[in-house]
Amino acid sequence: MAKETRTKPRWLIPAGVFLIAGALVTLGIASLLMSIMEKRNEAQTPYFPVVQLDEKSFDPADWGKNFPLQYEGWLATKEMPVEDQQPQTPTATDPRTIVAKSKIEEDPRLVTMWQGYAFAVDYRHPRGHAYMLEDQRFTKRVTSPQFKQPGACLNCHASTVPIMDELGNGDRKAGFDVMNKMTYQAATELAEHPVACIDCHDPKTMALRVTRPAFEEGIKEYKAGQGIKDYDVNRDATAQEMRSFVCAQCHVEYYFKGEEKTLTFPWDKGLTADDALAYYDEVGWSDFTHKLTGAKAVKAQHPDFETWSQGVHAKSGVTCADCHMPYQREGAAKVSDHQIASPMRSDESINASCLTCHSNTEQQMRDRVEGIHSTYEQTKNVAFDALTALIYDIEAAQKNGTPEAQVEAARGFQRKAQFFLDYVVSENSRGFHAPAYTNRLLNDVTDASRRGQMALRGVEYEPAGPPTPAPIGQPTLAPDKRK
Amino acid sequence: MAKETRTKPRWLIPAGVFLIAGALVTLGIASLLMSIMEKRNEAQTPYFPVVQLDEKSFDPADWGKNFPLQYEGWLATKEMPVEDQQPQTPTATDPRTIVAKSKIEEDPRLVTMWQGYAFAVDYRHPRGHAYMLEDQRFTKRVTSPQFKQPGACLNCHASTVPIMDELGNGDRKAGFDVMNKMTYQAATELAEHPVACIDCHDPKTMALRVTRPAFEEGIKEYKAGQGIKDYDVNRDATAQEMRSFVCAQCHVEYYFKGEEKTLTFPWDKGLTADDALAYYDEVGWSDFTHKLTGAKAVKAQHPDFETWSQGVHAKSGVTCADCHMPYQREGAAKVSDHQIASPMRSDESINASCLTCHSNTEQQMRDRVEGIHSTYEQTKNVAFDALTALIYDIEAAQKNGTPEAQVEAARGFQRKAQFFLDYVVSENSRGFHAPAYTNRLLNDVTDASRRGQMALRGVEYEPAGPPTPAPIGQPTLAPDKRK
Repeated sequence: MAKETRTKPRWLIPAGVFLIAGALVTLGIASLLMSIMEKRNEAQTPYFPVVQLDEKSFDPADWGKNFPLQYEGWLATKEMPVEDQQPQTPTATDPRTIVAKSKIEEDPRLVTMWQGYAFAVDYRHPRGHAYMLEDQRFTKRVTSPQFKQPGACLNCHASTVPIMDELGNGDRKAGFDVMNKMTYQAATELAEHPVACIDCHDPKTMALRVTRPAFEEGIKEYKAGQGIKDYDVNRDATAQEMRSFVCAQCHVEYYFKGEEKTLTFPWDKGLTADDALAYYDEVGWSDFTHKLTGAKAVKAQHPDFETWSQGVHAKSGVTCADCHMPYQREGAAKVSDHQIASPMRSDESINASCLTCHSNTEQQMRDRVEGIHSTYEQTKNVAFDALTALIYDIEAAQKNGTPEAQVEAARGFQRKAQFFLDYVVSENSRGFHAPAYTNRLLNDVTDASRRGQMALRGVEYEPAGPPTPAPIGQPTLAPDKRK
Repeated sequence: MAKETRTKPRWLIPAGVFLIAGALVTLGIASLLMSIMEKRNEAQTPYFPVVQLDEKSFDPADWGKNFPLQYEGWLATKEMPVEDQQPQTPTATDPRTIVAKSKIEEDPRLVTMWQGYAFAVDYRHPRGHAYMLEDQRFTKRVTSPQFKQPGACLNCHASTVPIMDELGNGDRKAGFDVMNKMTYQAATELAEHPVACIDCHDPKTMALRVTRPAFEEGIKEYKAGQGIKDYDVNRDATAQEMRSFVCAQCHVEYYFKGEEKTLTFPWDKGLTADDALAYYDEVGWSDFTHKLTGAKAVKAQHPDFETWSQGVHAKSGVTCADCHMPYQREGAAKVSDHQIASPMRSDESINASCLTCHSNTEQQMRDRVEGIHSTYEQTKNVAFDALTALIYDIEAAQKNGTPEAQVEAARGFQRKAQFFLDYVVSENSRGFHAPAYTNRLLNDVTDASRRGQMALRGVEYEPAGPPTPAPIGQPTLAPDKRK
C-alpha cells in the first residue's frame, strides 16, 4: 500500500486542491459577473416585449404581459380597506354589493348646498380607479330618471381612447365631440375599462402623453393667458410636468359647454378658484338653479390639479406621481407604483412618498397632515354654517316680502360662496394640497355668505358711516375705501 | 581648488540636501499638527476668558471681551436698511432723528380698530433689538400724558436683570413685582441697556436660561394644563427647547394682571388664540373700552412664540434660534448669529437659515415666503374690512335706537373679531409662522364681524328656518345642529 501510494507524485494532492479551489473561485467570479450583468440588463431593459403594443392595444391585460408589475399595481386599485366598505343590497338599477360611504349622510349641509342638483341625491367617498366606471354607471346621479346625463361624463370615468377612436373613425378629437353629446347611457355602452394604460402612455415609447382633448385645450388656454402662444402639451411639456398633466386630464374643475356638451376647463384667466368663477361669470354659466333659493349655482368638481398648483409641492416641482405613484424597486428595476392612492394610507406608502424628501418619521408626517386637515375642518365648518344659514335665509326671504332686489343680491353672494365651498370640499385632499390657500377660499365663503344675509336685510356692502373724529388728536380717518 | 574640494567626502552634499529636506518636512508636519491643534483648541475652547463674568456682569461690553463675535452681532442689531428709515425732526419728548415707518399710516383700519387705546396714536414697524429701549421711551404711547404706562412695560424693552436685582435686593422675583407696578417713567430710569447677554445666558456656563418670571410662570401654567405638574423651565427644558424659550420670554401675548400690574401670559388653557381669548373671557379681562362702540376689547401683542408653536417648524423641532440666529463659522468656531433678524433679509441669511434644511435656491425660498404673505394679505383684507364695517355699524346703531341687547351682542362679536385680528397683525411674521392656522383665525374674524353686524339687525345666529322638504325623495334635513 505504502509503495503504491508512493507511485503518485508528491505534488499531486495539493495541485488537485489548488485546481478545485481555482475552479471554484473562477465559478464564483463568473457567477458574480453574470449576476451583475443580469441586474444591469434588468435595469436597462425595463420590460420583455411579449406583445407588440400599438394604438389599437386597448386592453390593459395586453400591456400587462409586457409590464406585469405596473399592471399588477393598476389592478390593485380595486383593493378597498374594510372600514371604508359600505355593504348594500343590490337592486335592479344598482348591482353593487359594496359601495363607498356616503358623504351627504356624513354632512347634510352638502344636501342643502346642492338642492336641485344630482349631487344632493348621491355623493360618496371616492375609491380606487378600478371602480370609476361602475361607480358612475350605478350612482343615482345617473340612474335616477330625472337626471339626463350626457356622454361627456364618461370622459373621466372610462378608458375613452377606444371610444373616441371608434366614434371618430380614428380621429380622436372628432370622436370626443360625438361622445360628449350622446346620452350617458348610449356612451357608456361603448366603454370596456376604467382609465387604462393607453390613456396616459404612448404604446410604442411608453412616454407619458395627454389623450384628452379637454386638457389639451384647457392647458393651451391657460398658457395663452400667461403669454405663451400655441402651447401643445404633447410637444412642449417637460417629462416632469407630464407626471402631473396626465392626472390633470381628469382631476380638475370642468363644465360641459353649450349644446355640444363639450367638456371644458375654465382656465383662460388662471388656475385659482377666483379665476374659474370669473370665467363662469363672464360666460354666464351655471350648472343648476338652486331649488330653495333660485340662485344660479356652479357645481365645482375635484379641482385637485388646480389646488395642488397653488401649494408648496407644486412650487417645489413635486408632481402628482411623485406622491401618488412613488418609485418602487423590483429587483434592479425602478417601477412607479400604479396602485394610485393617498400616500397616507400606510407607513410603507408614507415612507415611499413623503420620506423621499422629508427627513421625518412616518408618524411625524401623519401628525402634520392631520394638523392640516384639522385646521381645514375648523375653517370649513364656520364657512359651511354661514353658507347654510344664507340658503335658509334666502328661502325665507322669498316668502316674507323681502324686496326682490335684495333677494337677488343675496343669490349673487350664494353663487360665489357655494362655488368656493364646493371647490374645496370636492377637492380630494381636505386642504392638504394648498392649506393656506384653501383656508383663504373658505374665508371668502364666510364673508360672501354673511354679506348675503345682510343684503337680504337691505344692508349695502358699504360701512354704515364715517367714524367719529379720532379722540386723540389724530386726523379723522374716512372709512376704508378699499371696499 | 580641485584638491581642496576633494577633501570633503563625496557623500556630504547629498547628505546635506537630505538633512535640509528632512528638516523642512519635519517642520511642515509640525506646523500642520500645530495648526490642527490650534483649530481643535479654537473649537473646543470657544472663548478666551479675559473677564470673569458673574451675576453682576450687567454690561454687555464686558461679555463682549470674552465673546467678541457674539457681541459684534448683538451690536449689529442697530443696523437698519435705508429704505426702512423714516427721518423725523426731534422734539422735546422725542429726540430720535430716525424712526421706523408707521403701520397705522399704512393701514388706517388699525386706527379704527384701536380707537381709545394708545396704539391708535403711534404704532410702527419693529426694528432691531438695539432700539427697543429708546423706541419705547419715545413712542407717543408712553410720552402722551393721557397714557399712564406701568413699569411692567419695561419687562420686554430693557435688560431687566439688573433692575430686578436692584429693586428686589437680589431677589429677582421680588424685584419683578416692584418694577411692574412702578410708573413707566420711574422704572425706565433704572434701565441702561436693551435686552443683553445676562438676560438669556448663565454668566458662568453660558447655558441658555430664562430670567423672566412671567415666562417661568406662563410655561408652568401651560404645562400644568397639559398634565405636567410643577414644571420648572430652567430645570426641565431641553437645550433645544431653550433655543425658543429664551425668545418666548418676550415674543408672546401677555397682559398686566390686577392692581399689581403683574406681567402675565394667558396660557393655562393652551397656546392658541382661542385658548387666550377663553382665558381672558374667564377672568373678565379687557385692555380698553373701544371709544366708538363701547366694546370691551383685548389688545393682542406679538404672539410670535404661540403662533410658531402652531406651525410646521415647531412640529419639526426647528426653534426660533435655528432661523433667526443661524450658526456661522468663524475660523474653527461655530457661532450663533446674534444679529437677530428676519432670515429673509438677504441671500446670505436665507442660505444660513432656510437652506440648512431646505433643498432650494434663495429665490425659491423667497417666492414661497412671498406666496404665504400674499395669501395672508388677501385673507386679512377681507377680515379687516368686515371688522371695520362692524365697528362703524355699532357706532351708528348706538345713535339710531337699535335695542341695547342687540348692540351688546354685536360688541361681543367685536371683542372676538378684534382680538383675533389684532393677534395675527401684531404677530411679526405676516402669516409665515403658521400659514393655515393664521388664515383660519382670520376666517373667524370675518365670521364674528359679519355676525355682529347681523346681531345689530336682530338676527340671531340660528338659521332662518327648516329647509323645504327635499324635492328628490330624500328625507327632509333639519338645519345643521352644530350651530
